[in-house]
Amino acid sequence: MKFEVTILGSSSATPIFNRNPSSQVLNINEKFLMIDCGEGTQQQMLRFGIKYHKIDHIFISHLHGDHFFGLIGLLSSMHLNGRSKTLYLFGPPELQEILDLQFKHSNTILKFPIDFFATQVNQAEIILETNDFFVETFVLNHRIPCTGFKFLQKLKLRKIRKEMVNELEIPASYYPLLKRVIDFVDKEGKTHKAFDLTADPDVPRAYAYCSDTVADGSYIQHLKDVDTLYHESTFMHDMQDRAKETFHTTSLEAAQIANDMNVSKLLIGHFSARYRDLTPLLLEARSVFEETFLANEGETFMI
Amino acid sequence: MKFEVTILGSSSATPIFNRNPSSQVLNINEKFLMIDCGEGTQQQMLRFGIKYHKIDHIFISHLHGDHFFGLIGLLSSMHLNGRSKTLYLFGPPELQEILDLQFKHSNTILKFPIDFFATQVNQAEIILETNDFFVETFVLNHRIPCTGFKFLQKLKLRKIRKEMVNELEIPASYYPLLKRVIDFVDKEGKTHKAFDLTADPDVPRAYAYCSDTVADGSYIQHLKDVDTLYHESTFMHDMQDRAKETFHTTSLEAAQIANDMNVSKLLIGHFSARYRDLTPLLLEARSVFEETFLANEGETFMI
Repeated sequence: MKFEVTILGSSSATPIFNRNPSSQVLNINEKFLMIDCGEGTQQQMLRFGIKYHKIDHIFISHLHGDHFFGLIGLLSSMHLNGRSKTLYLFGPPELQEILDLQFKHSNTILKFPIDFFATQVNQAEIILETNDFFVETFVLNHRIPCTGFKFLQKLKLRKIRKEMVNELEIPASYYPLLKRVIDFVDKEGKTHKAFDLTADPDVPRAYAYCSDTVADGSYIQHLKDVDTLYHESTFMHDMQDRAKETFHTTSLEAAQIANDMNVSKLLIGHFSARYRDLTPLLLEARSVFEETFLANEGETFMI
Repeated sequence: MKFEVTILGSSSATPIFNRNPSSQVLNINEKFLMIDCGEGTQQQMLRFGIKYHKIDHIFISHLHGDHFFGLIGLLSSMHLNGRSKTLYLFGPPELQEILDLQFKHSNTILKFPIDFFATQVNQAEIILETNDFFVETFVLNHRIPCTGFKFLQKLKLRKIRKEMVNELEIPASYYPLLKRVIDFVDKEGKTHKAFDLTADPDVPRAYAYCSDTVADGSYIQHLKDVDTLYHESTFMHDMQDRAKETFHTTSLEAAQIANDMNVSKLLIGHFSARYRDLTPLLLEARSVFEETFLANEGETFMI
């Protein structure tokens, strides 16, 4: 099952050095989910060939502008492009008020419904469940309320061992039972263990998005089962004091979390405007956690 | 005196084909004034080397997103870049409410004051006067209240004819009087006409920005003294019905206005997403008014 993330923006606070503010698009089995939507995200979508109509879910971590100022423009463009299907929007409660006010003063009545889910700022929760995955929030520690998001594939049923079921001439109509580990009894009355006729399902994978936060360990319990971790990494570790003061994380701290939580891959982003060249941030993180990558715009990472 | 306009965006409604929504920067004698501020304007400023701190005045024509969704981001970036001097903002009254709400929910207390001037939606007025120029609004006819802006240089004092005043050994302290046409009497009691000792000042130039509007002639009285006219030109003339329906102007209509008002130069912009190639719009306008130019991003036009 496809599970990958494409980076649309990796700049903190202000756009600079051709880096745009935060936004990513997850593709989970051809469902496209957007995480954060800084200014210029719709321009980035055009640049990287991501169609507006593919996005049905948008998750906003918090109400600092570099994480949501592109949302109103994207919604407006969806409207002007004739969208009619529902858009599922998840974010802090105040987001609705901000959108409503702007649509009111531009006299815009959207051609499509927005189903808005106000995220809780004080506790983790499951905010979406589909056939294929869950989305959970968890609480980060930033200057204003901020949530992280975790995207977890569901455990699938066991897989049919084609060659064995063919040999036993088990009818296809029985496969769903086998997948649920219900044994098969043949014409001679002999029982064949469903467990032997099936194989383990793929291990569910998980992606976590740690938006702006100080690296205080309060949220790492939520990263236990994570394969690919995106973690903000605004500063290098020589700026640790500044990071704490502004409720941000250093590259080294992000790598320590990745290492402690034993993830497979770490993506770092949300880079401060002070770094034109990002190589030092990458090398600092890799000194602790080898499988670190820069969340560069336009790049797609398999999860 | 320098008087020129740089185009930052020329797309209507949605960004497309690398065209960004409306924004322009006027340079009047090294004062930089921004007109409209669609999403991504701050990215365009970076691209074309226009520094945030140079902008002290921003004029917003109306509250459709393609004309102001970039404003909140630009103001935030000015804040994060440590701006302390006042920013003079002119726009529809509701703009203040929209900005205030977003700053409130992001817990942002701007490091610089915004002096907000609410434009009137029903009548023309002078909204700014400096030593060098006036800015006037005039009422356009769009789906929501919308103003045009006219930037008029002031008539300067007469210019000293250096070779003549040197010959007569007139002290420099007397120049301001000559400029005000006060005659000079020399030691022998002979009167020298100030008018002869000075030359005509430069003819004041004017730039008008006609944002979204139907071309109904209601505002052309304000374009009489205009040298360079920017006029929206969303559609080609075969779409005139659609233009009227959406309160927009065709390329041909914009050219007719330029021709009727006898301006020197017409800039057309705010192009519909249906036109990838803009040449047909340009040719259509030039069939009526030769001195028409596409308001292409990054181009600077002398006024």
